[in-house]
Amino acid sequence: MKADIGLIGLAVMGENLALNMENKGFTVAVYNRSVPGEEGVVDRFVSGRGKGKHFVGTHSIEQLVGSVKSPRIIMMMVKAGRPVDELITQLLPFLSPGDVIIDGGNSDFHDTERRVKELEEKGIYFVGTGISGGEEGALHGPSVMPGGSVKAWPLVKGILQGISAKLDDGSPCCEWIGAGGAGHFVKMVHNGIEYGDMQLISEAYSLLKNRKGLDNDAMAVVFDEWNRGELDSFLIEITANILRFRDEDGKPLLDKILDVAGQKGTGKWSAVTAMDRNDPLTLITEAVYARLLSALYSERTKAASLYSGELSVERRKRIDNSQLSTDDVRQALYAAKLVSYAQGFSLLRRASEYYGWDLDFGTIAHIWRKGCIIRSAFLQKVTEAYRKDPDLENLLFDDFFRSKIRAALSSWRRIVAEGALSGVALPAMSSALSYFDGLCTLHSAANMIQAQRDYFGAHTYERTDCERGRFFHTDWTGEGGNTVSGTYSV
Amino acid sequence: MKADIGLIGLAVMGENLALNMENKGFTVAVYNRSVPGEEGVVDRFVSGRGKGKHFVGTHSIEQLVGSVKSPRIIMMMVKAGRPVDELITQLLPFLSPGDVIIDGGNSDFHDTERRVKELEEKGIYFVGTGISGGEEGALHGPSVMPGGSVKAWPLVKGILQGISAKLDDGSPCCEWIGAGGAGHFVKMVHNGIEYGDMQLISEAYSLLKNRKGLDNDAMAVVFDEWNRGELDSFLIEITANILRFRDEDGKPLLDKILDVAGQKGTGKWSAVTAMDRNDPLTLITEAVYARLLSALYSERTKAASLYSGELSVERRKRIDNSQLSTDDVRQALYAAKLVSYAQGFSLLRRASEYYGWDLDFGTIAHIWRKGCIIRSAFLQKVTEAYRKDPDLENLLFDDFFRSKIRAALSSWRRIVAEGALSGVALPAMSSALSYFDGLCTLHSAANMIQAQRDYFGAHTYERTDCERGRFFHTDWTGEGGNTVSGTYSV
Repeated sequence: MKADIGLIGLAVMGENLALNMENKGFTVAVYNRSVPGEEGVVDRFVSGRGKGKHFVGTHSIEQLVGSVKSPRIIMMMVKAGRPVDELITQLLPFLSPGDVIIDGGNSDFHDTERRVKELEEKGIYFVGTGISGGEEGALHGPSVMPGGSVKAWPLVKGILQGISAKLDDGSPCCEWIGAGGAGHFVKMVHNGIEYGDMQLISEAYSLLKNRKGLDNDAMAVVFDEWNRGELDSFLIEITANILRFRDEDGKPLLDKILDVAGQKGTGKWSAVTAMDRNDPLTLITEAVYARLLSALYSERTKAASLYSGELSVERRKRIDNSQLSTDDVRQALYAAKLVSYAQGFSLLRRASEYYGWDLDFGTIAHIWRKGCIIRSAFLQKVTEAYRKDPDLENLLFDDFFRSKIRAALSSWRRIVAEGALSGVALPAMSSALSYFDGLCTLHSAANMIQAQRDYFGAHTYERTDCERGRFFHTDWTGEGGNTVSGTYSV
Repeated sequence: MKADIGLIGLAVMGENLALNMENKGFTVAVYNRSVPGEEGVVDRFVSGRGKGKHFVGTHSIEQLVGSVKSPRIIMMMVKAGRPVDELITQLLPFLSPGDVIIDGGNSDFHDTERRVKELEEKGIYFVGTGISGGEEGALHGPSVMPGGSVKAWPLVKGILQGISAKLDDGSPCCEWIGAGGAGHFVKMVHNGIEYGDMQLISEAYSLLKNRKGLDNDAMAVVFDEWNRGELDSFLIEITANILRFRDEDGKPLLDKILDVAGQKGTGKWSAVTAMDRNDPLTLITEAVYARLLSALYSERTKAASLYSGELSVERRKRIDNSQLSTDDVRQALYAAKLVSYAQGFSLLRRASEYYGWDLDFGTIAHIWRKGCIIRSAFLQKVTEAYRKDPDLENLLFDDFFRSKIRAALSSWRRIVAEGALSGVALPAMSSALSYFDGLCTLHSAANMIQAQRDYFGAHTYERTDCERGRFFHTDWTGEGGNTVSGTYSV
């Protein structure tokens, strides 16, 4: 009997997805390249975790493709970038028109956009799908964000929705996202939001530890409590578990983990894409930079020693913690999270318009409700906001968001001020507040920037007493010409 | 008699550079494309501002090249991007080996890197040079940052140093930067720093206006005073002039300028490049985002109306301005500026290592001392820091910077806290403080991020009780496998 799907790449995600598919009744042909360090991966899997299950171990691309029934569905779970193109090139000689390649890795959406076009010209359907949920999600039900060749959707829907997480009402956390690179774009923004959520939690942890003086067990209790309220989410849940986790010597493992955060690029991509779309994605960008800063370990060590005197003075001055409640911390985390999601969905909206994807934001929030890393009760509120108004310009304009920001605002302000005064770095919470205040400032100081640009570069400006779109230049010094800037860019 | 140089592109910068060259004794052949809207530009220039001077008006590329003595130096002052490549293609048939093309526009350094290679293969030298100073600088002496084909330097040095600004000791604000795209890279970072400086000034203006309640004339006095101290710089100087400038009706022009800030890309490039180089360039990035946010005019108008109640409440609560001195504002501006330059030079350092440019940071700061938009007395301190220690990891480790940060720190903290509490958006000042505090935090909360990444994605972590470079994975839930993440990226 031929397999329902072929899967290439048995690292942690591929392996668990294969087990998930098999568990849902699909027969899965598996293949892994044989390179130094990866010899025998297929055999070990089939005779190990895959033992006695419906797997077909294969040892060449040709054998893999030959093991799958037609129209063939071949899913790649390999490193993003060149390996994906190389694998496509290797697959093509064995595929027939109407076959489907699925890329389930974290590919750059620009690449996916290109691959869909290239493969459709050859009659092959290409689906670039985001998959979130990590190791556990892949095994038990991830959130799946497929996009690309829409004609492939009926062919892959059964498997992808089958393996995906399900909400309590039975609806799958997998729906068709859109054409071209839409699926990988949405996954990228998901990951960006994940960076933001994680940074916000680490800032809350830092405040509870450094300003409230709580120990890990006490913090675990706080996060547990938060997880029963409006912050109910996977990341808050695992934070409590992490805080409680003991190393072999009985001491908290967290305290032994080096504070150097890694990353693999999707956060940066979100920030870069936001700039391409003129979208101020401040919180996620600060979260990315916070990880980069954490990685400058030798610089940090030197700075900490050079400036230690100043910081301890500042800390001593504000050592009275009584004014700071754990609920203030929670409110600041929650308000900044609302801003982060508003920014993330704003980026989705701008990209959807630009690329013509016609994204359904309510559905995107819906399929993030379970399975993925940012799953949370709160996402239901995002869905509701977009169901009420699909053209909502900014989530912060929705009544629910507005009422929550209102409730949290003074705590949020106090926490950011406290961080500034006491030397606790809160880049995400404070950047979110700057964004919020900037957004709400009707007469901002950007007139000064425009005046300066016109002063030194003849870049022109608009006026408050004229309609938009009319541009003026002033000869500020009495020495400039009347030539308006054409070449010079600032 | 043949011209010393040919110049293509007579927009504001090209026109003023041509006049500057002629004023220094060079004969300049000029050319401008003849497209709708730009007919007759050459003739109007030669018979207008160029009248009676050593200009040769030309009306085709061939005529331009033919008018210049050999080896020919042709400078392009055209829009960056495709126009530069098109013009190069048009120039090539008329050039001979050993001729030099100079691109004085704001080109992407990646393009310059490529063009240097492509043209050197054809025997043509290519120089990508940053030019800063705006309209006035171009005319009276800009800061010039040439890089590319090093063999072209002796040929172009006379003209480029000739037109550049001069320091009091007579040294030119133009030195060879490095190979490939080094010149345009340094100009890009200059522009990024310029974004940061302008944003910081606008935040100081916002504080003086909204928290101190000063009117424009009073603020002009403050900026004048600042310009006589350690903030002595072109941008502070013109800020005072802008604050004093009256519209025809006698009212301050600044108040009639719409607070929607434009931009042309080099700020974004700096941010994107910083992420490519894993460098936390937070302040410049926030300055870019602040401009993008200012441009979301309809969203801002709506937000201001939806959240007006909350903000006025906050503002009322903190209406007592007595605690906030103008010197606190100055100190916050100055400290954040120190961070911004530290970040900018950090990016230069990482790029120099990566591209092998061997940049001389002290010289770069030196040629920014006059002519360019960010010119300031303070840059001398940057030069001194790198003359003392060319391998300085971070400017904040230099004694001068350290003493200034120390002196400013409590004012800076109070200002950022005040902004947070009162709703005055200070994205650059507060982001700089978060960076500084993050840099000085020896045991940061990034251990939580690494724990989470390992928990849900098997991304591994390092330990504080082991040497760097050893990576550990924990089965946090008791359900995970031992497979470490290979494919899955977060």
